[in-house]
Amino acid sequence: MKDNVMKNINIIKYNNGSFHETEDTVATEYALTIHVNGEEFATMVCTPTFLEDLVTGFLASEGVIRFPREIESLSIDEDRGFAYVQLVNKAPVTNQLQSKRFIGSCCGKSRQFYFQSDVKNAKTIVSKSTIGVEQCIQLMEAMQDSSDDFHSTGGLHNAALCTNEELLISRSDIGRHNALDKIYGYCLENKIPLSDKVIAFSGRISSEVLLKVSKIGAGIILSKSAPTTLALELANDLGITAVGFIRGTRLNVYTHPERIQ
Amino acid sequence: MKDNVMKNINIIKYNNGSFHETEDTVATEYALTIHVNGEEFATMVCTPTFLEDLVTGFLASEGVIRFPREIESLSIDEDRGFAYVQLVNKAPVTNQLQSKRFIGSCCGKSRQFYFQSDVKNAKTIVSKSTIGVEQCIQLMEAMQDSSDDFHSTGGLHNAALCTNEELLISRSDIGRHNALDKIYGYCLENKIPLSDKVIAFSGRISSEVLLKVSKIGAGIILSKSAPTTLALELANDLGITAVGFIRGTRLNVYTHPERIQ
Repeated sequence: MKDNVMKNINIIKYNNGSFHETEDTVATEYALTIHVNGEEFATMVCTPTFLEDLVTGFLASEGVIRFPREIESLSIDEDRGFAYVQLVNKAPVTNQLQSKRFIGSCCGKSRQFYFQSDVKNAKTIVSKSTIGVEQCIQLMEAMQDSSDDFHSTGGLHNAALCTNEELLISRSDIGRHNALDKIYGYCLENKIPLSDKVIAFSGRISSEVLLKVSKIGAGIILSKSAPTTLALELANDLGITAVGFIRGTRLNVYTHPERIQ
Repeated sequence: MKDNVMKNINIIKYNNGSFHETEDTVATEYALTIHVNGEEFATMVCTPTFLEDLVTGFLASEGVIRFPREIESLSIDEDRGFAYVQLVNKAPVTNQLQSKRFIGSCCGKSRQFYFQSDVKNAKTIVSKSTIGVEQCIQLMEAMQDSSDDFHSTGGLHNAALCTNEELLISRSDIGRHNALDKIYGYCLENKIPLSDKVIAFSGRISSEVLLKVSKIGAGIILSKSAPTTLALELANDLGITAVGFIRGTRLNVYTHPERIQ
C-alpha cells in the first residue's frame, strides 16, 4: 500500500544557510484512464489505492451507472494505468453531458449552477438524522488520526464515512473528489445505506465537493476547512448540513443547522 | 473588488460549549461558461476577478490561441456568468483534445502522461536564469503579504509572477489553475517575456500546476506546499526547477537545482 500512496525521492534541502542532500517522501500522483464499453471515457489523476471503488464511485457520480450490478466486468491494468469497464447495457456511453452547463430557472432564488450530469444525479437530502456538536469534533479528530499520510507528504486529502457516533472507513487521495468517489464506490459495492451517514473531509467544501456529497446521499458534511459561496447555495437548496472550520473546540455551522444538536 | 472575492454570510459559530450567531466571510465561487465562435467550450468555477485575463490565459493554455491577436472580440456577461469569444479564425473549435489521454513512448524513462492538449502546448524550458535561495524565501513572503484574502476566508490560492528579485503581479482564485491562467493571460496581453520569470504559488505542485507553468514558459516554480511524483517527473523532463515547502528559513529543491544559487 505504502508504495502506492507515496514514494521516497532524493532532494536538496536548504535550512538556515546550508544545503544538504537527503531523502524525502512525495505523494504519488497516478493517471488512470477509464474505458467504458470500449470507448475512452475519462482520465483522472489520483492516488492509486482502492481503484475499483474509485472507478465504481466515479461512474455512479457521473450518472453512468446507478448500481454496481450494471457493471458486467471491471478490470484494471495497474502498471499502464487503464481501467476497462463493460456495462450490462452495451450502448455507447459518451461523456458529453459532464462538461455542459445547465442553467436552472431562477425564480427569485440564488442563481443555480449545475453541470447536466449533476442535475441528473444530485439528490435532495431529507434525512432527519442529527449529530451532536461534540461528535462533529471527535469525528474530525478520528479522521485525522486514521491517516498520517497527509502529514508525512503534505499532499493528500482525507475523507471518512461516519455514523453520527463513529468513523466507519477512511480514504485518502491527492484529488479531493477522488477520496469521496472511493467512499461512494465502497458504499455501493457493500450496499451501505447513506442517508443517515456523515462525511468528514479534510479539504475545502467547494461546489464540486458538495455535489459529490449530495450524489452520495449523505445529509451532513464536516470539514476542517472553509466552504465557498456556491457550495453553500447548493447545500441550502439540496438540504445538506455544512459544518466547517472544525478545529479544536470550535466549528461553524453554515447551512441546515437543524441537524446539529 | 472585495464583493467579487468574498461575501459576508450569517453563520452559527460554536466555541467551547456555546453557540452564537455571527457574520463570517466566505470565498466567492462563480461559474463562468466560455463560448468560442458560438459554441460552448468549457465551464470553469472561479473567483470572478480579472476575467478577461483568465479567459485569455485559459484559451492559450488549452492551445486554442497562441497570441491575444487571434481573439477578434471577447465580451463578458458578468451577471449571468458567460464569456463570448470570437476568434479571427472562424473554424469551429472543439474541446475534444483536452480530455483525451496521450501515452508517450517509454524508452526507458519514467512513464509519461499528458493530455493531448498538453503535448501540443507544454514547452521545455532552457532558460539559464538563476535565483538565490534567500530570494526564493523573500518572494514567497512577498506573495503571502500581497494577499490577505486567503487568511480571511481560508479558501483562496495565490500565484505571483516574479523576477528573480521582486514580485511583479499577484493573483488569487479559488481554483489553483485559474490563478495561474490569470497571470498567463496578463503576460500575453502585456507581451511580458516569461522564460526568465519565476512563479510563486501557495498550493501544491500537482502535474496540472506543473504543466501550466511549462505552458506559461517560466523556468522556476516556488511553492509553500508539497509536489507530487508526477509533477516532479514532468518537471525533470520539461526543464523546470521545482522548489517546495518554502517556510521560514527552509525549503526543498526537487528538480533542476542548477538554477538555485
